[in-house]
Amino acid sequence: MLGLMQDRPLLISSLIEHAATFHPGTEIISRLPEGTVHRSNWGDIRLQARQIANALQALGIQPGERVGTLAWNGYRHLALYYGVSGSGAVLHTVNPRLFPEQIDYIVNHAEDQLLFFDITFAPLVEKLAPALKTVKAFIAMTDRAHMPAIELPNLLCYDELIGAQSTAYTWPALDERSASSLCYTSGTTGHPKGVLYSHRSTMLHTLMELAPDTFGLSTRETVLLVVPMFHANAWGTPYGAAMVGAKLVLPGPHLDGKSIYELLRDERVTFSQGVPTVWLMLFQFFDANPQLKPRDLGIQRVGIGGAAVSRAMLERFERDFGAEVTQGWGMTETSPIGVISKLLPKHDQISGDELVKVKLKQGRGVWGVELKIVDETGQALPWDGQAFGHLLVRGPWICSGYFKSEGGSVLDAEGYFPTGDVATIDADGYLQLVDRAKDVIKSGGEWISSIDLENVAMGHPAVAEAAIIGVAHPKWQERPLLLVVKRADHELTREAMLDYLSARVAKWWLPDDVVFVDSLPHTATGKLLKTRLREQFRDYRLPTA
Amino acid sequence: MLGLMQDRPLLISSLIEHAATFHPGTEIISRLPEGTVHRSNWGDIRLQARQIANALQALGIQPGERVGTLAWNGYRHLALYYGVSGSGAVLHTVNPRLFPEQIDYIVNHAEDQLLFFDITFAPLVEKLAPALKTVKAFIAMTDRAHMPAIELPNLLCYDELIGAQSTAYTWPALDERSASSLCYTSGTTGHPKGVLYSHRSTMLHTLMELAPDTFGLSTRETVLLVVPMFHANAWGTPYGAAMVGAKLVLPGPHLDGKSIYELLRDERVTFSQGVPTVWLMLFQFFDANPQLKPRDLGIQRVGIGGAAVSRAMLERFERDFGAEVTQGWGMTETSPIGVISKLLPKHDQISGDELVKVKLKQGRGVWGVELKIVDETGQALPWDGQAFGHLLVRGPWICSGYFKSEGGSVLDAEGYFPTGDVATIDADGYLQLVDRAKDVIKSGGEWISSIDLENVAMGHPAVAEAAIIGVAHPKWQERPLLLVVKRADHELTREAMLDYLSARVAKWWLPDDVVFVDSLPHTATGKLLKTRLREQFRDYRLPTA
Repeated sequence: MLGLMQDRPLLISSLIEHAATFHPGTEIISRLPEGTVHRSNWGDIRLQARQIANALQALGIQPGERVGTLAWNGYRHLALYYGVSGSGAVLHTVNPRLFPEQIDYIVNHAEDQLLFFDITFAPLVEKLAPALKTVKAFIAMTDRAHMPAIELPNLLCYDELIGAQSTAYTWPALDERSASSLCYTSGTTGHPKGVLYSHRSTMLHTLMELAPDTFGLSTRETVLLVVPMFHANAWGTPYGAAMVGAKLVLPGPHLDGKSIYELLRDERVTFSQGVPTVWLMLFQFFDANPQLKPRDLGIQRVGIGGAAVSRAMLERFERDFGAEVTQGWGMTETSPIGVISKLLPKHDQISGDELVKVKLKQGRGVWGVELKIVDETGQALPWDGQAFGHLLVRGPWICSGYFKSEGGSVLDAEGYFPTGDVATIDADGYLQLVDRAKDVIKSGGEWISSIDLENVAMGHPAVAEAAIIGVAHPKWQERPLLLVVKRADHELTREAMLDYLSARVAKWWLPDDVVFVDSLPHTATGKLLKTRLREQFRDYRLPTA
Repeated sequence: MLGLMQDRPLLISSLIEHAATFHPGTEIISRLPEGTVHRSNWGDIRLQARQIANALQALGIQPGERVGTLAWNGYRHLALYYGVSGSGAVLHTVNPRLFPEQIDYIVNHAEDQLLFFDITFAPLVEKLAPALKTVKAFIAMTDRAHMPAIELPNLLCYDELIGAQSTAYTWPALDERSASSLCYTSGTTGHPKGVLYSHRSTMLHTLMELAPDTFGLSTRETVLLVVPMFHANAWGTPYGAAMVGAKLVLPGPHLDGKSIYELLRDERVTFSQGVPTVWLMLFQFFDANPQLKPRDLGIQRVGIGGAAVSRAMLERFERDFGAEVTQGWGMTETSPIGVISKLLPKHDQISGDELVKVKLKQGRGVWGVELKIVDETGQALPWDGQAFGHLLVRGPWICSGYFKSEGGSVLDAEGYFPTGDVATIDADGYLQLVDRAKDVIKSGGEWISSIDLENVAMGHPAVAEAAIIGVAHPKWQERPLLLVVKRADHELTREAMLDYLSARVAKWWLPDDVVFVDSLPHTATGKLLKTRLREQFRDYRLPTA
């Protein structure tokens, strides 16, 4: 017997209609690629989203067809989030930091029919265009005055295209399971694979983002969205902000410390989300400007994901900014909320190191994400904070497979998605990442976590960045090698580094060698690119070998 | 094209599994009908819910069949919420405060197969049993030692029935649109009508309950649930508390000021929800015990619904308790979240009367509830805070009709549900109830809000409670009559009351007469029973007539 409740599908279009109905004047602030600050609001974004929907219709875009973007965080990109998905097409946010050949592959694989791009990427688009066979038109996201001087037969101006359309549009009543957006994972091996979100998965994830146990989004908030809109839908916050009518601040390409500082200050930001790399740049800005007091910003909360938060970063935000740090773990395949590090009431009884230890765990499971850790044979491991195994997740905003079945069937027999991460879970349900399954160092049948070792090394005041990779060893199969980028004006020797570590890690975890490098390679999303390091040091001969 | 996300139905069983997995030790405190305080936790509730599911199977209950409860807020009732709905049966929470003949009607109309009851209701059940033709067994929610001495051939003991079952059970993978619970509206005219919630509507409503813009439920919270579990699923909080693993405090039948005070104090409650009547009893307890300081309780937030909040109540909670008051409007048919009175950032700029005025509005629309107000012809009215008309609502947790089609098709052409309320909506989307459509006083073609007049009258220090009803008038069709219950030890004359009002309301709104009464009739859910007052004063002759 079915219930007698209204049968309303969960659709992304309902978000922009809600925001514009209840919060029409709430501001959307964008720093444009041109450097100027643009002020819009939810009412305007709705009108623009409807114009986009009409423009797509005029350009012959069919339901389910992909519309690509190569764009930073800005109001035009935000309007595309609603206009494209709301109209039934699929918004494909392409990561512009990928190598051109990857972008080429992705756009062709997705069969993007249109490509909207920020003018920053005009030279890239001009170069790639001939290879992008499915793209019928390239739309520069700017006004006529700023149109890039590139030669493309099918180049359009966003403001002209959109501005010519009616602001009247009736959003279609789609099946809520319809595809809404597409995001490729910047895999470090093989071709990128596309995660195809649905309206339903997006809306359920958005609802969970409001929970105080996750992002706690509310209408009281001013959110600076540093995490890119091409990275797992900017963690879903462009949707969550609309659901509650929060003020949104979008930094464009300007992620340097000074630009972020200015937006935090000028817009009285209360909450900001981003990867550790961006916060390091902000810290460096404050280091260089000791007359400025971070606490004067009044920022209350910082959400950090994409990579583990170091103790130094956590403590600096708490001490200098007076801000609460919420870290989380997730991936493109998890929309991205997986686990979130919110404290339990019992943690009010602890402090100091004990409390920091809890805060540095990636976080606790929330409703909607079932977790399990398993050993090599698929057997579930206990939640004791000690046993570590492959992490699998299940829930309505976790992917079931990749676009065009790349990688085949990915779920296990119980419907769980294997994350490729290795983790522990403690009795309170807090997950701690131990490593990526492929990064863990297999030393004589035991596993050593490269992440744990890196975190300890990062604690040394002379270390700017550290990486641990496994290097072949005749006796132990693999042994850890530490690569270190020294901080400017700091001295550090191999011996001093190893002494520092030996006081802090088990003897058998101690790296077999230390190499000082000028820089470390990163993926487009700021993660250490260990595949490249492993290639580079493939033939490295450890002194113990 | 469909998205590639996991196809997981939204089911109530997932809530108890989540709570028991991540928050097994978080307490569920119940004051039992016997008066003792019982301590359980989410882990225990899961086991009990699974035992209930097994017991239902043993008793031959089929999916979709109704299982009735006549029970207060307590852990056994909570376990039934999960065990009954989770297993695919429909939990029918019967309001024990209704008249016996209404209960008889409701249980028969719902065709309840089982009836679980608190021992408080043993005499009632004994009396009703012969007429309840579909009920195969009556289960007293107690242990063997407290079994009531009543004569029923099919009387079972809850603890024995449940205790005999296995704690192992696999929840069925139901269609999420399946009926999960049933609640009859305590209509003041005609037969009660059943609202049939679905798993989907319940889960979406539960997700929205976590939002800081609504209840803001989190794992940090200790919630005293004063609103009865037979009233619109206790506003959904038994589900929300499980979704976040909050500590839950259930007061049983003991809603007097002293009992509520003790639970607030002993369990360090942070958030409590209930109707104004209960809070008035708590205030009276503090009035009688001036040595006790409400602020010492440390309660942070109070959620009030079911009737409008008076300025006096709002200010007393803020001033004496240091608690934030969140009022809301909803009904059984809206799960019940309709609108919630949370402030916007712009309200930080105002204070005093201006701010109070905003807080006394019923609240702002949240995502998931579309609002409209229309005139007598169905034309939409402007959102200007002035125009008032019939309120209609639409969304995934709003009912589409009543059980067994009582009342026929209820939605309008656009799919909106007519609430029977009359309201204004202002430019910020704040709804203010003007009246029930049937309570509004039609005076010479203009409408006078009985609620507004009552609120003003309630502001007089000598008024304990006030009611306004329309009485027939030869010239104006209807004119307002004020009925007043004086506070003990206070004097008040008709003239003093009218003087007080004339300083505060438009001249043509002024009641034509004042009658002092000893008490006013209420519905089972604490609302003024105006139908009865209108009957009682049907032939009342106004001095102006």
